Amino acid sequence: MTPTLFLQALDREIALQRYGDQPTDLYEPIRYLMALGGKRLRPVLTLLGASLYTDDWQTALRPAIAVEVFHNFTLMHDDIMDRAPIRRGQPTVHEKWNANTAILSGDVMLVQAYELLLDAPADLLRPVLARFNRTAAEVCEGQQWDMAFESRETVSEAEYLEMIRLKTAVLLGFALELGATLGRASVADAARLRQIGENIGLGFQLKDDYLDVYGEPGKFGKRVGGDILANKKTFLLIDALEKAESPIRAELDRWLAANDYNPVEKVEAVTAIYDRLGVGKTTETLMNQYFTNAFRLLDELPAEPERKATLRKFAEELIGRER
Amino acid sequence: MTPTLFLQALDREIALQRYGDQPTDLYEPIRYLMALGGKRLRPVLTLLGASLYTDDWQTALRPAIAVEVFHNFTLMHDDIMDRAPIRRGQPTVHEKWNANTAILSGDVMLVQAYELLLDAPADLLRPVLARFNRTAAEVCEGQQWDMAFESRETVSEAEYLEMIRLKTAVLLGFALELGATLGRASVADAARLRQIGENIGLGFQLKDDYLDVYGEPGKFGKRVGGDILANKKTFLLIDALEKAESPIRAELDRWLAANDYNPVEKVEAVTAIYDRLGVGKTTETLMNQYFTNAFRLLDELPAEPERKATLRKFAEELIGRER
Repeated sequence: MTPTLFLQALDREIALQRYGDQPTDLYEPIRYLMALGGKRLRPVLTLLGASLYTDDWQTALRPAIAVEVFHNFTLMHDDIMDRAPIRRGQPTVHEKWNANTAILSGDVMLVQAYELLLDAPADLLRPVLARFNRTAAEVCEGQQWDMAFESRETVSEAEYLEMIRLKTAVLLGFALELGATLGRASVADAARLRQIGENIGLGFQLKDDYLDVYGEPGKFGKRVGGDILANKKTFLLIDALEKAESPIRAELDRWLAANDYNPVEKVEAVTAIYDRLGVGKTTETLMNQYFTNAFRLLDELPAEPERKATLRKFAEELIGRER
Repeated sequence: MTPTLFLQALDREIALQRYGDQPTDLYEPIRYLMALGGKRLRPVLTLLGASLYTDDWQTALRPAIAVEVFHNFTLMHDDIMDRAPIRRGQPTVHEKWNANTAILSGDVMLVQAYELLLDAPADLLRPVLARFNRTAAEVCEGQQWDMAFESRETVSEAEYLEMIRLKTAVLLGFALELGATLGRASVADAARLRQIGENIGLGFQLKDDYLDVYGEPGKFGKRVGGDILANKKTFLLIDALEKAESPIRAELDRWLAANDYNPVEKVEAVTAIYDRLGVGKTTETLMNQYFTNAFRLLDELPAEPERKATLRKFAEELIGRER
């Protein structure tokens, strides 16, 4: 099985899910958000994790969808908190309906994620749920840190890395671990796959930060410099604030405090500061360390080389992609 | 064991729960809301349900607290949606912190409820979680109907009863059923206890509606007539709108549309309309039907009479109480 075929199987199964019927305003937002698509990265990872150990990847299909439903639940609630108007090119649920509906639909979506996890075999149900509970709590912790950082004066690199680990990376780790567990991997192997997923997630988020500044405008989905214009505390900005001494620090502070400016000018000026401080290089180095860790852990994993090659190829494509 | 001793055991155990540590703003609101107290009705019902079948009620303690945590999660999110400033005499979480914190703390609270349910023995975990998932979804459905009814022109009595069944009664039913299941009752007995809880819940909610109009001001916690002043679509108002013909209907409509009025006058006038239509009597009759159903089902339950007597006494006190 290839990731493309897994994706097709997932999209077919997701299209079949009803989640519930009445009241329409409770369940329609779930179908709406789930139908907006996306790369289905997390459930593909679950199926790839299972495929390392078994040909019977189908038994992992509904639990894999649980991870995708959980991920979309976090998007629905995060979008309310972040007042985001657009998700995947379409109005967010709280914009299309309202905040109350988005709160309540999100709640029942979390319940549906648990319901899909009940497909796990009886002897694996408790360990799967215990790990899922921990992961879900960590994702909430990450979102709370992310919101708290917005209003904080300073955030250290260590704090930032822990925040993105919780908010983004642990769910990628859980997705792989879940697949491995359902494929009857040993606890040690499953834990190693969790580490692989977390490292990929950390590298991936750093790459996202990096590409906002250094991505090619054509390839990169978002507008280059969006994070700079929003004064977003990305790894690059945090690293720059740690490195900069006057007069560079004073110049950076001026741009961060500026209210009236030419956007192109600000992006160019802050990028020039990043260049002088070597912030891009530091970010790339750290990002590559995470990816290297992930591949090293995968190499050491005692699973069939052919099966590992599929996961490795998928991860390589994921990492190489300018998005 | 008596309900009072159960309550003490529950309060002790609840005080020990940490839910999580960092970030503080994620977990402190949970401890805050759980510490505001309340009657702990639902977990007491779980322990009473277990005690019908076993002396080892302690094994049901953490799952019982799961029901209380879930109930408080719904309060935290409902209070955001209803813009309620006060809960149990104290500021609501979204008032004391903010709406985003209340959304996210609520989310992690739902996860904690699942975590507490993992205390169920391995062979019961799946059935317990399946029933909990269904119940949790129904409670969300009830809240969505409740919000939808606010902006609807007409709501039928059947629709209203189904709404309060979902929003309030099913969780009381689940609380009893969960205890019975953990006490190793048969599936049939557990289902009967669910019915008992639902009937108590339905009667209880009707009583709440009734007491808003006909309760003694000193005994009843809330201000008498609060629902009338808020034009709240209680069973009494719905029944009145179904029964009233002109000119009474016209008078009732005038009060519902009035913007500028003396509150005491409105409460007196609407109460007089209810009296003329016999709305209070109808509500009392229906309420008593639910309570009678509950006691009949309990009488028929094949459990030890002495153990049943404790539950019966508790239910009688619950029902007799003017609150």
